[in-house]
Amino acid sequence: MTERSQLAQDLAEVEQVNGEFYAAFERGDLDAMTEIWLDDPNTLCIHPGAEPLRGAASITRSWALIMANVPYIQFFLTDVQVTVHEDVASVTCTENVLTATEQTAQDSFTGAKAIATNVFVRTEDTWRLWIHHASPVISVEHDED
Amino acid sequence: MTERSQLAQDLAEVEQVNGEFYAAFERGDLDAMTEIWLDDPNTLCIHPGAEPLRGAASITRSWALIMANVPYIQFFLTDVQVTVHEDVASVTCTENVLTATEQTAQDSFTGAKAIATNVFVRTEDTWRLWIHHASPVISVEHDED
Repeated sequence: MTERSQLAQDLAEVEQVNGEFYAAFERGDLDAMTEIWLDDPNTLCIHPGAEPLRGAASITRSWALIMANVPYIQFFLTDVQVTVHEDVASVTCTENVLTATEQTAQDSFTGAKAIATNVFVRTEDTWRLWIHHASPVISVEHDED
Repeated sequence: MTERSQLAQDLAEVEQVNGEFYAAFERGDLDAMTEIWLDDPNTLCIHPGAEPLRGAASITRSWALIMANVPYIQFFLTDVQVTVHEDVASVTCTENVLTATEQTAQDSFTGAKAIATNVFVRTEDTWRLWIHHASPVISVEHDED
């Protein structure tokens, strides 16, 4: 395989795994979510506005709690940018989030926006999530000069 | 060098460069700040609450603006955790920030807290910053059960 097509394949694989991460969240599929993470005590997860969590046990517990409390969530990812640096890949994306809770009236949804940095590590068979850092967007900076 | 002492050296070097990043910000030293970043179009900088910036030109411009508008800033880093994965290292830390602006009365400071993920890449002579993602802390989650 040429270097260029290897890179193209890496980028496509990483974007796919990144999509699977959000799909697992949407389905409330804790097994799939756990599978996506690297099995390493140094994995890192920062939910929007929250303190960092480290390691599979803490991170899995946080997803179980979130999934139990969010009956409906849907992500529309925009501005997805993937970079591969040898065996580590970073994805940044804007998470446009649509949620409904038990308290929400039917047909009523809440929208929110966050920015995420997801760092994946290449393993033997696929890419695994090493770092997820999501943060609320407060100010919008335009940088299009 | 044994594998263990190589890792210890890597961890120490990364923590040092991470400290230099904040020191450059505190001194308002744009040259030092620019030097710390990897020279790559895919570098990524997310200031607290802001949209992602990519590449040296955008990132340097943002630091120039921030430095011009913040006459005094001091960082007290806590909960610094460094992880090395081959040629990529991640640092998470809590940025306890003390700032003063032109408008602030003398001897009056504002405190703030953010969580940062900094990802560094090993280069020939040192580690360079690839990703800086800082986000405001809104809720405090205790996870000490």
